Amino acid sequence: MSVSTPAHHSEQPGGIMSGEMAEQPAVLHRILDDGAPVIAETARLIAARRPRFVLLTARGTSDNAALYAKYLLEVQLGKPCGLTSMSTVTTYGARPDLTDVLAVTVSQSGGSPDLVASTKAAREAGAITLAVTNNADSPLAAVSEHHIGILAGPERALPATKTYTASLLTLYLFVQGLRPGGGDGTTAARALPGLAQRILDRGPEVRQLAARYRFAERMVLTSRGYGYPTAKEAALKLMETSYIPALSYSGADLLHGPLAMVDNISPVIAIVTEGRGGAALQPVLERLRGRGADLMIVGTEAEVARATTGFALPTAGVPEELQPLLEILPLQMLAYEITIARGQDPDAPRALAKVTETR
Amino acid sequence: MSVSTPAHHSEQPGGIMSGEMAEQPAVLHRILDDGAPVIAETARLIAARRPRFVLLTARGTSDNAALYAKYLLEVQLGKPCGLTSMSTVTTYGARPDLTDVLAVTVSQSGGSPDLVASTKAAREAGAITLAVTNNADSPLAAVSEHHIGILAGPERALPATKTYTASLLTLYLFVQGLRPGGGDGTTAARALPGLAQRILDRGPEVRQLAARYRFAERMVLTSRGYGYPTAKEAALKLMETSYIPALSYSGADLLHGPLAMVDNISPVIAIVTEGRGGAALQPVLERLRGRGADLMIVGTEAEVARATTGFALPTAGVPEELQPLLEILPLQMLAYEITIARGQDPDAPRALAKVTETR
Repeated sequence: MSVSTPAHHSEQPGGIMSGEMAEQPAVLHRILDDGAPVIAETARLIAARRPRFVLLTARGTSDNAALYAKYLLEVQLGKPCGLTSMSTVTTYGARPDLTDVLAVTVSQSGGSPDLVASTKAAREAGAITLAVTNNADSPLAAVSEHHIGILAGPERALPATKTYTASLLTLYLFVQGLRPGGGDGTTAARALPGLAQRILDRGPEVRQLAARYRFAERMVLTSRGYGYPTAKEAALKLMETSYIPALSYSGADLLHGPLAMVDNISPVIAIVTEGRGGAALQPVLERLRGRGADLMIVGTEAEVARATTGFALPTAGVPEELQPLLEILPLQMLAYEITIARGQDPDAPRALAKVTETR
Repeated sequence: MSVSTPAHHSEQPGGIMSGEMAEQPAVLHRILDDGAPVIAETARLIAARRPRFVLLTARGTSDNAALYAKYLLEVQLGKPCGLTSMSTVTTYGARPDLTDVLAVTVSQSGGSPDLVASTKAAREAGAITLAVTNNADSPLAAVSEHHIGILAGPERALPATKTYTASLLTLYLFVQGLRPGGGDGTTAARALPGLAQRILDRGPEVRQLAARYRFAERMVLTSRGYGYPTAKEAALKLMETSYIPALSYSGADLLHGPLAMVDNISPVIAIVTEGRGGAALQPVLERLRGRGADLMIVGTEAEVARATTGFALPTAGVPEELQPLLEILPLQMLAYEITIARGQDPDAPRALAKVTETR
């Protein structure tokens, strides 16, 4: 199948992206084996300083990883969190008092000048600063008090895939390390690389799903709770690769207005995390079914059976907060396969640069 | 012109929405005359308790008003802020320690059960709670320690317009009241009702702009800084009324990926606030021009002259942080006119309920 076949290399359209998607089980293994001790030690040092509030800063794919961390920090740790509106610092020169604040910046490259500037400003304002990047030698790592590498190896594809799942696992292990008396989190995550491989091996199934969306003019993605960052990241991936306008909403926000766009004109993809998030999404799914929406579900086999179509995830025994690491995989594959089906090249999006030089 | 002509009443398609858009200058007047003292007194009481962090909670249109408040609080007050991920409290039962935290909930109706539940939980967790609503008798006002009414009068249209600008002005005055030694903010805002009327009187001009987008299959909205909430609210308004998939991005995020969707296939609307936000958006505008994007600008006459088309705002002498109250008006009108041009009824979106009962 296209995602993991070695023959599918970089001379072929999408060969770079599919090669990096295929690396994900190995990257997760590496984080659990080699990365975990550093993550745990960094968490221990930061927990000792007892931050009261957490600010997360990131852009693009990393912003979706930061949103995942926000859910973990609020639910598991009870810390109030905010996602930074970076321009308040870099454009308006805001200098908030950040005593007792942990400022986490997530960036694959660690090179965006605005992220470096806002992290530097946060440190000067009294924050404990942590950079989570894929490049220990980056300017962002240099200006942060603490740095954790996500160990994903060089990322050449323009649509980020392996650095997303690597960021999620790294942030998960970091938050576990912050929990009072919490373990290192590796035990719960140990099954993930194998489960990820099982999903990546189902390329032909995703290719069939992709055929349904080849002519879609728009798509709506929705979820609730831990699955919501997955909906946002899947929408970004679809837009970056296939250029299909993909709109993502939390289930509650979808009911507040954009539902007008649904019906048979916009196919909906719902990420139904097994647990409280998925349970809270049920009224939204009922409403979508009642409107005759074309509904694809990424979730358990039982959820998929109640939708138009779907991709059943092997999540039995996986804690709810770790399911986002698996949920995104079929959606990365879907973005890839839709793009191929449309005759475009996922490795050649028209406008992406790997380090975005916003100042 | 359709927005303010008395003949255009509720029996005609969009008569309810256009009637409420036309009320906006009067509502702004009412807030400045009757609302300001209560807002200033509430701000004084809250400032005395010296909150260190601010959490903002809202959905839909009110969420965009909350985002505007986040910029004000960070830039003008130097308070770290976060927008709440409500499900962490209502679905996952998170109970963060909210000592020293000001929790502001913005809701037109004050009736959404999940907003009531999360505000109640915030108060129990030690937060200073403030509800900003259009209904002083609402359950949300009842569970909050403080309440400020936005005095917009009954809102019958499903797409919210006058409650949005009323929320912005209320939140602006509230933040001015929180500033140490800050005045009441009404002086700076006094010109707004007259300027708003001048914009609303330009219906025929907006109708011409709307004709360009009648057949658009998607739209991209972008801004930076104080104009970013305007981009988000305009996108929501377009989707709720016309069902055109409208994607909104901060200028920096647009460069991080979704730019692949631009070119001649997606018209772009940029909100160029006069001041630092607009200056920071310039590199993005250059990039869009370089790609041959169809670019409409809402901003100064000079900015409009450098775009494909646009709507020149009378912002001379209006502080940057107050311009969002004016920027949204032509975009509300545009959503209305595109919907009429498409033969749809802005008063009858297919799926909106005025109080969304997410639990």
